[in-house]
Amino acid sequence: MGRLKKVGILTSGGDAPGMNAAIRAVVRAAICSNMEVVGIMQGFHGMINNIVEPMNSRSVSNIIHKGGTILKSARSQEFRTPEGRKQAFDNLVENGIDSLVVIGGDGTFNGARIFSSECNIPIVGIPGTIDNDLYGTDYTIGYDTALNTVVEAVDKIRDTAHAHSRIFFVEVMGRDAGFLALRSGIASGAEAILVPEIDMDYKQLYEYLEKGHNKDKSSSIVIVAEGEKINGGAIMLSEKIKKEYPSFDPRVTILGHIQRGGSPSAFDRVTASRMGVSAIEALNDGQRNVMLGLVNKEITLIPFNQALKHKKQLNPGLLELTRVLSI
Amino acid sequence: MGRLKKVGILTSGGDAPGMNAAIRAVVRAAICSNMEVVGIMQGFHGMINNIVEPMNSRSVSNIIHKGGTILKSARSQEFRTPEGRKQAFDNLVENGIDSLVVIGGDGTFNGARIFSSECNIPIVGIPGTIDNDLYGTDYTIGYDTALNTVVEAVDKIRDTAHAHSRIFFVEVMGRDAGFLALRSGIASGAEAILVPEIDMDYKQLYEYLEKGHNKDKSSSIVIVAEGEKINGGAIMLSEKIKKEYPSFDPRVTILGHIQRGGSPSAFDRVTASRMGVSAIEALNDGQRNVMLGLVNKEITLIPFNQALKHKKQLNPGLLELTRVLSI
Amino acid sequence: MGRLKKVGILTSGGDAPGMNAAIRAVVRAAICSNMEVVGIMQGFHGMINNIVEPMNSRSVSNIIHKGGTILKSARSQEFRTPEGRKQAFDNLVENGIDSLVVIGGDGTFNGARIFSSECNIPIVGIPGTIDNDLYGTDYTIGYDTALNTVVEAVDKIRDTAHAHSRIFFVEVMGRDAGFLALRSGIASGAEAILVPEIDMDYKQLYEYLEKGHNKDKSSSIVIVAEGEKINGGAIMLSEKIKKEYPSFDPRVTILGHIQRGGSPSAFDRVTASRMGVSAIEALNDGQRNVMLGLVNKEITLIPFNQALKHKKQLNPGLLELTRVLSI
Amino acid sequence: MGRLKKVGILTSGGDAPGMNAAIRAVVRAAICSNMEVVGIMQGFHGMINNIVEPMNSRSVSNIIHKGGTILKSARSQEFRTPEGRKQAFDNLVENGIDSLVVIGGDGTFNGARIFSSECNIPIVGIPGTIDNDLYGTDYTIGYDTALNTVVEAVDKIRDTAHAHSRIFFVEVMGRDAGFLALRSGIASGAEAILVPEIDMDYKQLYEYLEKGHNKDKSSSIVIVAEGEKINGGAIMLSEKIKKEYPSFDPRVTILGHIQRGGSPSAFDRVTASRMGVSAIEALNDGQRNVMLGLVNKEITLIPFNQALKHKKQLNPGLLELTRVLSI
Repeated sequence: MGRLKKVGILTSGGDAPGMNAAIRAVVRAAICSNMEVVGIMQGFHGMINNIVEPMNSRSVSNIIHKGGTILKSARSQEFRTPEGRKQAFDNLVENGIDSLVVIGGDGTFNGARIFSSECNIPIVGIPGTIDNDLYGTDYTIGYDTALNTVVEAVDKIRDTAHAHSRIFFVEVMGRDAGFLALRSGIASGAEAILVPEIDMDYKQLYEYLEKGHNKDKSSSIVIVAEGEKINGGAIMLSEKIKKEYPSFDPRVTILGHIQRGGSPSAFDRVTASRMGVSAIEALNDGQRNVMLGLVNKEITLIPFNQALKHKKQLNPGLLELTRVLSI
Repeated sequence: MGRLKKVGILTSGGDAPGMNAAIRAVVRAAICSNMEVVGIMQGFHGMINNIVEPMNSRSVSNIIHKGGTILKSARSQEFRTPEGRKQAFDNLVENGIDSLVVIGGDGTFNGARIFSSECNIPIVGIPGTIDNDLYGTDYTIGYDTALNTVVEAVDKIRDTAHAHSRIFFVEVMGRDAGFLALRSGIASGAEAILVPEIDMDYKQLYEYLEKGHNKDKSSSIVIVAEGEKINGGAIMLSEKIKKEYPSFDPRVTILGHIQRGGSPSAFDRVTASRMGVSAIEALNDGQRNVMLGLVNKEITLIPFNQALKHKKQLNPGLLELTRVLSI
Repeated sequence: MGRLKKVGILTSGGDAPGMNAAIRAVVRAAICSNMEVVGIMQGFHGMINNIVEPMNSRSVSNIIHKGGTILKSARSQEFRTPEGRKQAFDNLVENGIDSLVVIGGDGTFNGARIFSSECNIPIVGIPGTIDNDLYGTDYTIGYDTALNTVVEAVDKIRDTAHAHSRIFFVEVMGRDAGFLALRSGIASGAEAILVPEIDMDYKQLYEYLEKGHNKDKSSSIVIVAEGEKINGGAIMLSEKIKKEYPSFDPRVTILGHIQRGGSPSAFDRVTASRMGVSAIEALNDGQRNVMLGLVNKEITLIPFNQALKHKKQLNPGLLELTRVLSI
Repeated sequence: MGRLKKVGILTSGGDAPGMNAAIRAVVRAAICSNMEVVGIMQGFHGMINNIVEPMNSRSVSNIIHKGGTILKSARSQEFRTPEGRKQAFDNLVENGIDSLVVIGGDGTFNGARIFSSECNIPIVGIPGTIDNDLYGTDYTIGYDTALNTVVEAVDKIRDTAHAHSRIFFVEVMGRDAGFLALRSGIASGAEAILVPEIDMDYKQLYEYLEKGHNKDKSSSIVIVAEGEKINGGAIMLSEKIKKEYPSFDPRVTILGHIQRGGSPSAFDRVTASRMGVSAIEALNDGQRNVMLGLVNKEITLIPFNQALKHKKQLNPGLLELTRVLSI
């Protein structure tokens, strides 16, 4: 295989802060390597429908600080079919695109893995999701920003919790993984944290909080991951607890989509910038079908297969921390 | 009546950013007027239960920037009874408190009005609520901060709306009044704003938005006041619209309690500081049973009776603005 | 004179947050009035050099929350000459531009006033400057945002002041006017505020602060407007005070250009939106050579002549407030 | 040696965001270990002057989100003398304090090292400084927050830089180390970064920027560490460059003390919480005279001696990144 000449770049799945910083880095690193760059709009959907535009150094000016993704994102049912992927590949060939950088989460990389095996095109993936649920990297792009967004929101809620001596259940994103809940819970001084990985039913929670209230705490914050299974999320949890213990009167706040947006944190911008440059280096180095990771502060590579096969584990020490810190 | 010697201060009702700045100003202005100051904790509840603490200049150091209220707030059913109010007054007498500054919303001032008529104690009210729904003042303390909180949240949501070309319905506080919805809607560039004061059903909204979508808008934000009556709030609105127009797929976010908290804006801090000083001046000037207002940049007084009798009107020109600006 | 058909819009002078919100409103209101809109880049410089681009509704999508100005700003010596202005007018004629909206401060309006008298073209001005130093409007666009920026910065500095029991002199913008210093000083709980309008030499300041320190204050913030004349700004002030009173060890921070930038506050966005729409209404209403104002919450008009002739006064009551609040 | 019974805690040196989160964790972890905790105010100065107060679980309520340090910090010349340290130790003995946790930077740990060698008391250090210049830990507490503060400030400055097509030199903290400059430079999309570790004179900088300007960049940000030696800081740099290349007109902003303050980021709060708990574990584990570190996401220990002997190196790959990303 000869030198790569033209790289396509796309973002797919839920958007995450820092994706634009990664796009900027990919585009500029490609240009520095004498490659052309084509932006593929709306993820795999745009690849199938040939919604592309050439990018140059100025296309990515003044975007490093912006949330969202200038390439937009979308779901594509068609890309799940061989016909859809065939159409996508035909478009790449027509545009002269000989390599891809895809930015997204596990759904994105699974699509990329299948596409690559069928169509023999080198692909490098950059992990971008606020959930931090990808094996093979310590941090995904967007996670640090989302943590700060959650913590700032809880700081505001705590003002009211404190003023009224109330308990608040705050539901944060995380369907299958409790990373966001766990770290935001510690950082916001939560009294308890409920995550999908560990069962804590409403009775256990009540008893745990009661202990706190006996020690003259005037307000409490409980962080609940939306994927918390045993109680069914913050609203159900609140209803169950109110029914069984009528003296308890928790308020519920679902943080919702504010967690995906906002200007990326310094950490996410630096990680995104490093990964963007490394993605182009990896392609030019002959790498294919690998996801970039940040492991122990170094940029690493892991095959899509392995990244998708394993589940990243919560740090059990962190969960233990809450018990000590919320006394 | 002779010179006032000891003023009690309390916060009541929902907390609002800037209440602490007002408390600080009341305390320091009172000290400058050679009055003693007593903090009454938890609003009328603390008045009945005699939960008080003397305050000095240092008690209010380093609080001007804090959300919530250091005096805490609470509901009091007892204060709705003559017996409760009698107990409250006895406590005031026992503590030597001869005047009151109360910070809160219409419920607070209604309680103050009744209490004052029964117990013959001069009371001055400072309007503190994020809803801005008090007649007799252009702005209530907390409203400007809440506006900024909503606008920052919607800016984040817009990142995702834009990335995914989606419509978001964002529900903001405001049970009876659309002030927060109206101004935050304009400031966040919303395509439509639903307020309690004006009926717009889901069909009208759909048609209005469809026009926008025809003009190649890729994303839309609709601000919905929680007190919007005709559709029943953002979630009901979304469900009705999805059922009738299945191609529409709006997302819903309820901003919730983050709107009450946070460090107060410069505007709220200045207004709170001015009102706090004016409250003490008004008391020493022989005023009683009046609410302070900020009207045309000047501090004004309005009797509780009048403030409570009238309903503040939305500026119809502002609502019209959205139609022009969202094209 | 017939109906206006094509309006040019420019920003000039120092940029201010909210200018983009005003541009958006002008463009969309013009389109709603069936006018064409042309963006003139880099203020009067671009008018002379014919750097223009047609604008439509999409040109101003997604800019309401952005600081700076998409039309850019620049100084123009040439526009001070009759030849420069003649060239500018020729370009307008060539482009079919029959009216102008100019966004800026007093320099901008003075240029507009002269230009209009020479060239007979209707011009409406929108006051955009963080200094709030324009007669004829209660608030200029950008002022509220800059206030919040200063207050947030001082909140951070206070953390350190408090931790180390130190005095900080914080210099804020304002060459001729103390509006920003005055309100930010009150809002940040400053012990003293030095403004160009009122003389307070370093000895007076020292004595004033000494009183505070005797009352066991552990830290102090002094806000100094850059145009404070009698001491020569924060650095000179600090040096004079240290020389005369060696036990004093104040730190100096010059906030600088961060004050001009940032996402506009809700207040500035709403004001900018209202003024932008009103600018087009005024033009279509036959108004010319007037500046828009926000006076007692209503949009008003004032001839450039009058706006430039008078000097807006500080509210003396606000300055007095600091003495009460900093005890 | 028997079980430790009473731990003293202090903060020393420049304050850093997250110190309060660390204090909270130390206090609560100590209580969980059945130890008493004494807060020593104003660092070593308070140890010598016996300014102490007992702390319990409530002493550290609601401080996790606050900048600065509730224990205050101060310099102490006396602690540099054997007599001062003797006095300090006598006070510890008198108070029954048998172990210490000190939070600060290299000056703090050097003092602790000497004190411990003379007085035989176990000490554990927590690295808290925005400079991140401590060997033995990947991140110091406060560094991540300061990075975000700088990046947000530069985002604001960029608005103006962009509006006026200007070059800004932004000076950030870092007397001996360029960590803050380097990462904030990458994260804010700076065109160049000057650090103490690498020489780049004003001519090299000019040539480097000129290249950028030839490529139609309209604005530029240069981050300059205050300890940049060869040009003498941002102001000198600007003057030299203006003198030699009069067409260049860079503006200078010194960010100053805002970098030390502010509510700590999620990352700093989590790190501080982990380190605080680990400090008590280490003491109870018989460790002494060690600094805690966060290395590859795990909490580690390093003797004060070693931490002080080595100099942490900048990541050269990051500096190279800027050349690629600023095209």
